[in-house]
Amino acid sequence: MIEEGDRVLLIGPKREYYLRAGPGKFGSDAGEIELSDLIGKEPGDEIRTHLGKVFSIRVPRPPDLFTHGKRSGAPMLPKDIGMVIAYTGMNRRDRVLDAGTGSGVAAIYFGGIAASVDTYEIRPEFARLAEKNIADARLDNVRVHPEDFLTATGSFDIVHLDMMIQPDHVAHAHSLLVPGGFFATYTPFFEQTFGVIDAATELFAGEVHCYECMERELTRSARGTRPSTRVAHSGFLTIARK
Amino acid sequence: MIEEGDRVLLIGPKREYYLRAGPGKFGSDAGEIELSDLIGKEPGDEIRTHLGKVFSIRVPRPPDLFTHGKRSGAPMLPKDIGMVIAYTGMNRRDRVLDAGTGSGVAAIYFGGIAASVDTYEIRPEFARLAEKNIADARLDNVRVHPEDFLTATGSFDIVHLDMMIQPDHVAHAHSLLVPGGFFATYTPFFEQTFGVIDAATELFAGEVHCYECMERELTRSARGTRPSTRVAHSGFLTIARK
Amino acid sequence: MIEEGDRVLLIGPKREYYLRAGPGKFGSDAGEIELSDLIGKEPGDEIRTHLGKVFSIRVPRPPDLFTHGKRSGAPMLPKDIGMVIAYTGMNRRDRVLDAGTGSGVAAIYFGGIAASVDTYEIRPEFARLAEKNIADARLDNVRVHPEDFLTATGSFDIVHLDMMIQPDHVAHAHSLLVPGGFFATYTPFFEQTFGVIDAATELFAGEVHCYECMERELTRSARGTRPSTRVAHSGFLTIARK
Amino acid sequence: MIEEGDRVLLIGPKREYYLRAGPGKFGSDAGEIELSDLIGKEPGDEIRTHLGKVFSIRVPRPPDLFTHGKRSGAPMLPKDIGMVIAYTGMNRRDRVLDAGTGSGVAAIYFGGIAASVDTYEIRPEFARLAEKNIADARLDNVRVHPEDFLTATGSFDIVHLDMMIQPDHVAHAHSLLVPGGFFATYTPFFEQTFGVIDAATELFAGEVHCYECMERELTRSARGTRPSTRVAHSGFLTIARK
Repeated sequence: MIEEGDRVLLIGPKREYYLRAGPGKFGSDAGEIELSDLIGKEPGDEIRTHLGKVFSIRVPRPPDLFTHGKRSGAPMLPKDIGMVIAYTGMNRRDRVLDAGTGSGVAAIYFGGIAASVDTYEIRPEFARLAEKNIADARLDNVRVHPEDFLTATGSFDIVHLDMMIQPDHVAHAHSLLVPGGFFATYTPFFEQTFGVIDAATELFAGEVHCYECMERELTRSARGTRPSTRVAHSGFLTIARK
Repeated sequence: MIEEGDRVLLIGPKREYYLRAGPGKFGSDAGEIELSDLIGKEPGDEIRTHLGKVFSIRVPRPPDLFTHGKRSGAPMLPKDIGMVIAYTGMNRRDRVLDAGTGSGVAAIYFGGIAASVDTYEIRPEFARLAEKNIADARLDNVRVHPEDFLTATGSFDIVHLDMMIQPDHVAHAHSLLVPGGFFATYTPFFEQTFGVIDAATELFAGEVHCYECMERELTRSARGTRPSTRVAHSGFLTIARK
Repeated sequence: MIEEGDRVLLIGPKREYYLRAGPGKFGSDAGEIELSDLIGKEPGDEIRTHLGKVFSIRVPRPPDLFTHGKRSGAPMLPKDIGMVIAYTGMNRRDRVLDAGTGSGVAAIYFGGIAASVDTYEIRPEFARLAEKNIADARLDNVRVHPEDFLTATGSFDIVHLDMMIQPDHVAHAHSLLVPGGFFATYTPFFEQTFGVIDAATELFAGEVHCYECMERELTRSARGTRPSTRVAHSGFLTIARK
Repeated sequence: MIEEGDRVLLIGPKREYYLRAGPGKFGSDAGEIELSDLIGKEPGDEIRTHLGKVFSIRVPRPPDLFTHGKRSGAPMLPKDIGMVIAYTGMNRRDRVLDAGTGSGVAAIYFGGIAASVDTYEIRPEFARLAEKNIADARLDNVRVHPEDFLTATGSFDIVHLDMMIQPDHVAHAHSLLVPGGFFATYTPFFEQTFGVIDAATELFAGEVHCYECMERELTRSARGTRPSTRVAHSGFLTIARK
């Protein structure tokens, strides 16, 4: 049931709107809706504007937050977040440490899966933005630390870094992991990636693997089917096991 | 704490062994271990063979089950499972329906994340194998149905198919989804993929996207760093939203 | 030595200009040059504007014609032209038939290599454009036929098609080839590509191969080195041998 | 017309044989052929074994030499040779310098196109092997120099290196090129590639580009069409213009 302050998607025939249940009005060329009328509704319910146009109510899922949430910098793409989840086998038993929170995209995906997520972001304005996005995702198991990752303490099953990584970050990650735990990093440039591989190879017992996921979309139209003319390079994923 | 019948990994300096705590002995050239001695241990504890060699005890994570579990046919690769998780935003609130269970690899990954997984496998010998693998993963929220997917009933947030897909499978998936729910398919061949895109485009309200993830490993050695000489094609992921 | 009417590149410190030796003046913010002064110069010579700025004289090579020539539609990219040359082993002994001339890009590359090129273009305005571009490339061994490929006659070592291809085009290509000759096609869509593969597999004695070349640029800057964020999909090359 | 000593391909219904016209006999389970009987034949002619089996006669093209010639080390793949030809616009007017000859594969492709090819190979046994392969290709415009590339003199339109490259090699290449000439290198590892890019960026007037061509085959069978499960990484092509 939707409560006051919850994020809600209104899905119309052509467009969708990312709103918040509570005080105020939402208006489009389809008419107006009182946002307080959303309180108490269930996902899948419909609501009508004063002009009688129908919208379907949806509770946002992580991909909606990726699309509609406020971002900063270059967030990790879903494909790369998915690779981290799969290669670490992230699941509900896991305590996850994340650093380089940015706007919180990865922390939100991880928070929907893991037992707990502690995410470190040294830039205060990003930490505040991430807190808002995480609150919108109704996740109470994700804690944003507006601090340097090197100050992190505790014991974790997975440590994930999306930031400029120095060898002491790799050593600190290693010290925070349980035996068998996974270290995962995302780095866009080769030089950094090579540095992470070298530092991890020295410290971690298990093999260190580095992957790139080149994602390509298939486009199907009346003219025919072809690979999309673009493939986005994003970055490299390095995975090491303690 | 490890209980009788639990799967355990013993990690030695060079090799690792996938065993079961309980009756019997395990022997290698490093010496023998009574498998009942594993009961009551914690992950990270050590155990010694009768020759005094030390092994570290680990509780398997999903990637271990992918590596060591009994397989059948061509299981989905972690990269593709990760894409399904990320593009659907799979999380602990989700009821997931999976079909084409195979040896249960995807169901095990999903089971560690979602509230519940119902997985349909029409071939009885695969359904039995999947049940064993799922039990080894200590997942009590995954239920294997040794039946045709077209008999599935209920209401789901995500429907995932890894099987030969006909248009009526797409229609049935659509009927099982809540509004805003995701349909995800994995298909190795173009022809099937085109058929899925067409059937989904007709039925689903949201956009239909089809992705391929070309994963490539970076190999770093004394001679230098280079992309691995192989990229595995696996299949295409089609994602549609109700 | 540059003659009247020849295409010339003037290379300045920041920009280059694609001009024609002969009557008229060329002016830029670096000053003016009489285009007749280019006649009699050698590639590598320098020429000064009336303001004393120096330009280096260059005779265009095929990549310059690709960059500066007038184009129409979507010309084949150099990477794909290079694949055709390499997989057919195109060389100075070859009589090449090309169809779907477009603006003549492929015909110009082939013309610099093969003994002769006959290129068929059914659209008269493209045939005229190609003739101009080929004349600018100073190639007297390339003949543009403003006609349907199905009217082509003769005996060829290589037949290359970049056009909408029907089975009768494949059969006609086969009939024009010498034993051991190569048939090469460029098709952007899967459906067409599959049709070509099927028609060629039926007719050609040798194996039929279909390749895609995903080209990616490496970008190196002060921040580091990374793959370019774009990979252009262009089309598929099908190669069959008689 | 085939002369004594020429390489010849005999094409049977299932297999092909790479032979030399002249003294001796060739025998297979299809019967025997006197190799002197090949002299005077034309490509496309047929020849019968003493058992009456028919073979078709073919004069090898560069791809045949790639397939059947004696190799050493890891020759450049056709796709990469094709990229060099296309990005440099190699044509019959060009004087080409090649170094790191290996077994001569690139030199043979270039020799069929350019006015002349001088190829440097410091390892005497490779230089001898390349000479044999080049003679088999009936190319009299290719000269193998069993010497260090740094000793090369002359003036060239294209300099191509497939070897371990140091900054002084880049400087030497630059000194040998005409204005507007192209420098092209093939390097399998990132570290070397970065070094070449840096050295070339400092010396060459034009932009330096570095490409990777990820080639993938499409496989079409009764089960359906899919990308081949393998993509070969080979190396990076760096292209700079004087």
